[in-house]
Amino acid sequence: MDIMANVLLAAGASPAMAHSIAEVEDFVGIASAVLINVGTLSDDWVGGMKLAAKKAVELGKPWVLDPVGCGATPYRTQICAALLRLKPTVVRGNASEILALAGASHTTKGVDSTAAATEALEAGMQIAQEHGCIVAISGAEDLVTDGSRVLRAANGVPMLQQITATGCSVTAVVAAFVSQFPQQPLEAAAHALSYFGLAAELGAADAKGPGSLRVGLLDNLWTMSEQQLLVGAKVHD
Amino acid sequence: MDIMANVLLAAGASPAMAHSIAEVEDFVGIASAVLINVGTLSDDWVGGMKLAAKKAVELGKPWVLDPVGCGATPYRTQICAALLRLKPTVVRGNASEILALAGASHTTKGVDSTAAATEALEAGMQIAQEHGCIVAISGAEDLVTDGSRVLRAANGVPMLQQITATGCSVTAVVAAFVSQFPQQPLEAAAHALSYFGLAAELGAADAKGPGSLRVGLLDNLWTMSEQQLLVGAKVHD
Amino acid sequence: MDIMANVLLAAGASPAMAHSIAEVEDFVGIASAVLINVGTLSDDWVGGMKLAAKKAVELGKPWVLDPVGCGATPYRTQICAALLRLKPTVVRGNASEILALAGASHTTKGVDSTAAATEALEAGMQIAQEHGCIVAISGAEDLVTDGSRVLRAANGVPMLQQITATGCSVTAVVAAFVSQFPQQPLEAAAHALSYFGLAAELGAADAKGPGSLRVGLLDNLWTMSEQQLLVGAKVHD
Repeated sequence: MDIMANVLLAAGASPAMAHSIAEVEDFVGIASAVLINVGTLSDDWVGGMKLAAKKAVELGKPWVLDPVGCGATPYRTQICAALLRLKPTVVRGNASEILALAGASHTTKGVDSTAAATEALEAGMQIAQEHGCIVAISGAEDLVTDGSRVLRAANGVPMLQQITATGCSVTAVVAAFVSQFPQQPLEAAAHALSYFGLAAELGAADAKGPGSLRVGLLDNLWTMSEQQLLVGAKVHD
Repeated sequence: MDIMANVLLAAGASPAMAHSIAEVEDFVGIASAVLINVGTLSDDWVGGMKLAAKKAVELGKPWVLDPVGCGATPYRTQICAALLRLKPTVVRGNASEILALAGASHTTKGVDSTAAATEALEAGMQIAQEHGCIVAISGAEDLVTDGSRVLRAANGVPMLQQITATGCSVTAVVAAFVSQFPQQPLEAAAHALSYFGLAAELGAADAKGPGSLRVGLLDNLWTMSEQQLLVGAKVHD
Repeated sequence: MDIMANVLLAAGASPAMAHSIAEVEDFVGIASAVLINVGTLSDDWVGGMKLAAKKAVELGKPWVLDPVGCGATPYRTQICAALLRLKPTVVRGNASEILALAGASHTTKGVDSTAAATEALEAGMQIAQEHGCIVAISGAEDLVTDGSRVLRAANGVPMLQQITATGCSVTAVVAAFVSQFPQQPLEAAAHALSYFGLAAELGAADAKGPGSLRVGLLDNLWTMSEQQLLVGAKVHD
């Protein structure tokens, strides 16, 4: 939660976190977009997640699903599948998570992917078609699809994997971008991934390890100009 | 929670966090001050909060309320109002939260303030008088009142708003200061705000963005000498 | 949780966090080792902790107990004692926690130790003998015992105490090391403590305070070579 909120603030967004059934719907009412991340699951949070998703759909607001660790346990896979049926605008996961979500027989090792993004492209396209959503698959090169088109976002550095919750954080940035371009969720998601990856590239220049990379990532999310993003973003068909 | 604990440790305090009904009262017994932050609310935590507040009052220990996001949802506003009736020593919030807490009709956008500190001064003074507490209102210039006197604390940098939980963290420092000067909660709260803001100013000198500002803030909370604080603190009537 | 996960990633491990009764056993099934940390206790988490411990024993996987704040409240002490009976491979705590766990009459001030490691050595050896586990006691010099032998690990810097959850994080590294050397838990635990302490020593060279020390710690956990560890680790009988 810590880095997700910091990433959103550094990206210029205004995050608020809530999970109580008593107030999630009200928070959805004042938000521009909703992010549902199943990270540290528990039964009492699941009710809040479902209410938030339903309210977002009801209000016509975009919502983004991060199926963290989908495939790692049957419970987690089942919750993710139930959330998928609630019509997310975008699903962002790594290849293992997307494969598990598509019902492909696949074993996930915790929250890290054991498969390459390309291996999950077919599964991602299938989810996108069936559920009418955008699916973003993180990897060395990220893939984003609406079920027919595929955009590739090729920014980032491998050492991001040594920082916890960078996957969750990039999903939060996807939600922020989609809230600003609700009519173009495919392009918004792809550019969100590139923006995050580019900030990591810029931060990596001065980084000695994952501690200083995290600092540099946050600094560059904040300081990056539109011009830097346009020049540095590697988004292509 | 992460930055709050780090801020307290860097400030020389000794934090412990608990929320279970089964042990909060015992923790209050060994603490010098209690901080209740309603950040990520849930029903099972609210019981712990109320028990902690009551125990602090019973033992004559100062307790500080941070009404995070008060006004954002009816549930949150109601919980904050109930906690306020349990006699906090200090309430620290932004202008939107203080206005909502005072019952002024006011809409909060999540945890960020949409109003200036001065707009909430009257509401803050009213809370202070009615509930016999100190009210601290964060803003470009912080205002601290006991219902009659008003102190202003003018340290800080705008980029603090790009770091999550800095509001929560400064409230934690207020609790630490008030625990050391329980007879002067007005002055203690004002100087806590200036100490935190000054550490941010010193840290900002080397900061490239919110990532490095957070590092510099923690470094300077720890290294700041009493002399530096006396020279740099901008607390005045 | 944030720094624990980052420390494990920087150390080359692959952490996943779970606490729901519905899935902890499945997570234990895919993990190489289990860490149970009682930090922010609540009743619904305790069930998950016990299930995880039992499953680890059943599957013959090492599990490590961090009795955070044991002795601070009766509830906490009782939960820690119950977990100890579930046969951890290693227990890692500070002197106050180990003394409280051994039933010695002792008052803990929150999560910071008020006793030196040597004062708890006898209590630690007693726990190790009774429960057939390794006990690691953190202090200026760390002590690790299997009930008969005692290893000393003498790396680290005092300023680590100004960073939250460094105790919890070093326990996580102990779990990672023990998972790789399950037949030598005594040596694995001692070297885990030295590896962590040495990374802090290397990071302290450039650190201005606890903010930059945390960055340097994570950087050096990642970049440290085997040669650096062999030369710098101060583990001895």
